[in-house]
Amino acid sequence: MISEAITQWKAVLGGGGVADDEITLERYARTTLDEAPRPVAVLRPRSTEDVHAIVRIASENNVVVYPISRGKNFGYGDACATTSGAAIIDLSGMDKILEVDTELGYAVIEPGVSQRQLHEYLESHNTGLWFDCTGAGFDASLVGNTVDRGFGHTRYGDHFLTACGMEVVLPDGRILNTGFGHYANARATRVFRYGVGPFLDGLFCQSNLGIVTKLGLWLMPAPEAFRFFFVRLDRPEDFMPFIDRIRPLRMRGILQSAVHIGNDLRILSSSTGYPWERTAGDTPLPEDVREQLRREAGIGAWSAAGSLTGTYAQVRGAARALRRAMKGLGKVVFVDDAKLALSGFAARCLGAVGLGKRLNAQLEALRPNYSLLKGIPTDEPLLGALWRLRTPPVYKTYDILAAKCGLMWISPVLPTTGRDAKTLMRVVEPIFTQYGFDLLATFTLITERAMIGILNVAFDKREPEETERARRCYDALMEAVMTAGYYPYRVGLAGLPKLSQPGDVFWQVATQIKAALDPQDILARGRYIPPLSEAQDREPNESG
Amino acid sequence: MISEAITQWKAVLGGGGVADDEITLERYARTTLDEAPRPVAVLRPRSTEDVHAIVRIASENNVVVYPISRGKNFGYGDACATTSGAAIIDLSGMDKILEVDTELGYAVIEPGVSQRQLHEYLESHNTGLWFDCTGAGFDASLVGNTVDRGFGHTRYGDHFLTACGMEVVLPDGRILNTGFGHYANARATRVFRYGVGPFLDGLFCQSNLGIVTKLGLWLMPAPEAFRFFFVRLDRPEDFMPFIDRIRPLRMRGILQSAVHIGNDLRILSSSTGYPWERTAGDTPLPEDVREQLRREAGIGAWSAAGSLTGTYAQVRGAARALRRAMKGLGKVVFVDDAKLALSGFAARCLGAVGLGKRLNAQLEALRPNYSLLKGIPTDEPLLGALWRLRTPPVYKTYDILAAKCGLMWISPVLPTTGRDAKTLMRVVEPIFTQYGFDLLATFTLITERAMIGILNVAFDKREPEETERARRCYDALMEAVMTAGYYPYRVGLAGLPKLSQPGDVFWQVATQIKAALDPQDILARGRYIPPLSEAQDREPNESG
Repeated sequence: MISEAITQWKAVLGGGGVADDEITLERYARTTLDEAPRPVAVLRPRSTEDVHAIVRIASENNVVVYPISRGKNFGYGDACATTSGAAIIDLSGMDKILEVDTELGYAVIEPGVSQRQLHEYLESHNTGLWFDCTGAGFDASLVGNTVDRGFGHTRYGDHFLTACGMEVVLPDGRILNTGFGHYANARATRVFRYGVGPFLDGLFCQSNLGIVTKLGLWLMPAPEAFRFFFVRLDRPEDFMPFIDRIRPLRMRGILQSAVHIGNDLRILSSSTGYPWERTAGDTPLPEDVREQLRREAGIGAWSAAGSLTGTYAQVRGAARALRRAMKGLGKVVFVDDAKLALSGFAARCLGAVGLGKRLNAQLEALRPNYSLLKGIPTDEPLLGALWRLRTPPVYKTYDILAAKCGLMWISPVLPTTGRDAKTLMRVVEPIFTQYGFDLLATFTLITERAMIGILNVAFDKREPEETERARRCYDALMEAVMTAGYYPYRVGLAGLPKLSQPGDVFWQVATQIKAALDPQDILARGRYIPPLSEAQDREPNESG
Repeated sequence: MISEAITQWKAVLGGGGVADDEITLERYARTTLDEAPRPVAVLRPRSTEDVHAIVRIASENNVVVYPISRGKNFGYGDACATTSGAAIIDLSGMDKILEVDTELGYAVIEPGVSQRQLHEYLESHNTGLWFDCTGAGFDASLVGNTVDRGFGHTRYGDHFLTACGMEVVLPDGRILNTGFGHYANARATRVFRYGVGPFLDGLFCQSNLGIVTKLGLWLMPAPEAFRFFFVRLDRPEDFMPFIDRIRPLRMRGILQSAVHIGNDLRILSSSTGYPWERTAGDTPLPEDVREQLRREAGIGAWSAAGSLTGTYAQVRGAARALRRAMKGLGKVVFVDDAKLALSGFAARCLGAVGLGKRLNAQLEALRPNYSLLKGIPTDEPLLGALWRLRTPPVYKTYDILAAKCGLMWISPVLPTTGRDAKTLMRVVEPIFTQYGFDLLATFTLITERAMIGILNVAFDKREPEETERARRCYDALMEAVMTAGYYPYRVGLAGLPKLSQPGDVFWQVATQIKAALDPQDILARGRYIPPLSEAQDREPNESG
């Protein structure tokens, strides 16, 4: 079956478009998770027509295909398929920026377009436009992140909300254009998401119903005024009142951007590894060492950051409201381009203007975050994955797959209240401790009312025992957060089977749609929507 | 078939829950359109269980059912089904406000909840929360408007964007909860729309795939500062530069609310009828009379309005940016509670503070708009429907069905550019003139990049010739705007068959989903998704 498919794929894509050699398959099987399936082939289409031909051949030969945009789905499944025996469709060669409209502020891109590429395009063409970056690094795909409903930290942080008009290759090869895109000469395809009739775009996120081959993406005009802010919270318990004070600012539209909050360990992990020597090899990190590290780095138990944009007067107004809200809790430090430029100066100059050495170091540490909020991607957040390596690479690397980093993300969604933050922390902290891992955590206020927690189970893949334990820790955490009512916004391969229960009408409906559009279940089998074979006995009403 | 269904429905709902008498059927067949189908029965469920039983019985007896929330879908189809022979499910008796969370700012409501009801609840319970009103009046349903993807004018103007978590009765009676709502004990159901896995909510808007029986809806905290603004544009051609100057403010997030722009006739129509005497019965309105009316009312060719919210400093900043943007084009007048209170005073007081009589009159005229932007519903916009009546009711009424108002809406979506506004106006103006109608138009900047035009074909339903001509005018307009690339965001009954063409993959997919969830096509047959019987020959791949 697969050999016949490979022959046919080669006929369409040419030899260079199809690989099934050991080295390639091994490379695509690399994962930050404990384990992931190995593919049987890797296909590299160059166009929507190629993708059309690929799925047609897959269907004829009953071979499962699994599309990846650029394969940077770190901590969730990387470039790996959900099931073994699949051929990977690597869309990274479809990397055209098809259109950038500077007047209406949007781009139309293919799935292979990376964050770096779009950033460079927007810069070099002096468009005056920014996009919302995600923390997955320079090479991550914008389309891939969007269809996984990933997020960033600006006003456009909810990426799916800024996606406008999809071209989708369906499992049977038909090409669907969503929104107004299926109408001749439609003028509003890239400015109005819904079109007319049912809004179908949601079907193609976190699912396996089609392959998105083109996407409209809204871009922000660089604002008149931009101020980065950060708030240092000294004590672990300050996190809860912080949440309750910041929520009203989000709900009133005073703060338009997402706010990003990281704990001490998550901040430390970006610049340093686990202190194996100080702890004499013990895990998890003892409390006294943790406090020491915090003191040495001059960071609080939690650090929050975000940006204010608008006119100068608006930004001043928002800054005032933010300062007022934080009174007695944490000092708000504002940074703009002028101040950041200053931080490059010698420490004595800084002393003279009252910033001090420590703040200077903090500013330097925040530079990647600062850039991110201005639409400049960065690889720095990836460094957190190196945290638990016994022998980290001597030369700094961002290639976390090559470095054998272990990384699994638990990403529960919480109402933005101090109570919920506290409950969640109480649920997860003892589990991390029990399994000997350190709780590296961030929370992002993604909507005006909800925040997403990203809890890293970071481990060393060179250590089989730790790897196996990490997986048990992940399973225990998923079980615990779901039982507590904090379901994940997104899951990795190991999380997929935990999402659906027999009799759950939601997954029944998703499965019925899958059966209607992909009766052979050849596209990304098991990705969010359970395999049709498993679902058979769950369906009271099979589609007609 | 229908008689058997009625017997069974009576057994479940009781005699009071089922009507098929002449008077009731006649009443539900009333329409502002030229014509609409008459139902065979009207059902009034009281609970989700009732709705479940209704669709089960409909399915067993193969009778089409058509759900309405409160039937105030004026200008698009009112309370009428898309096809004859249908039983109306009138959900207005399901009018419980199930939950209001003042901390997180949301309500959970049933489809029968009206704008008036929610407003009164929020006021009387001192919640400090506002909702985004639509112009369809006090009695319009919030759920109904949302699932039709209706809109209002504030920061929460895109109603579907503020809908968070649906309970849906499927055509086979199963009950679906979207987002996280299908998980036990889920904490984030009303604060995070997507849940995990495919986002299904879009399927239940502008479609016929399920009956929404509960909806989470986000509410805005009353802002610290609120300023209403309006801009008078004297000349018709000022509209285009206005659009180009306001767009950057929307795209930069400086203006967070939708901006609403009406032409002279639309403004006049809210306070006066067509000047039949002055024109000696002629239509459409001659240019000189139009100018006269404009002068007398002290209005410009266009009037734009919106609101600024946030902290006092932010609002001041936004006001400054708005004034700067309008320089040399139109004067921006700001109104807040203090100023509006003033307008109630005697004209001489106003003269003294420099406002003048005319402005006072304008302020009074704008009072409903002002209220709307603070979450207070109003019936005033409905008065526009009376515009063309030869003999309007002596006592002012908002019951436009009883008043025999004729009203069809064409609602094209445009990119927010002056060019597109100009092109659209050039396309539609001659058609209105040709058919003897007056172009009453509004444009709403619903997203940062798109605006929706609402063009009224207002006519007198007592005049058969005019009614028939209105329909031809509607058809010509729909054809023209679609050919020009400005597809509608929503359509009335007459528009539905114009949306789908054979071979359009978008409608094929929608139809496949319909076939999977409602193989008998008993739910709201023909509503957006074409009838399955028609679609048969269009489907290259029927679902398995």
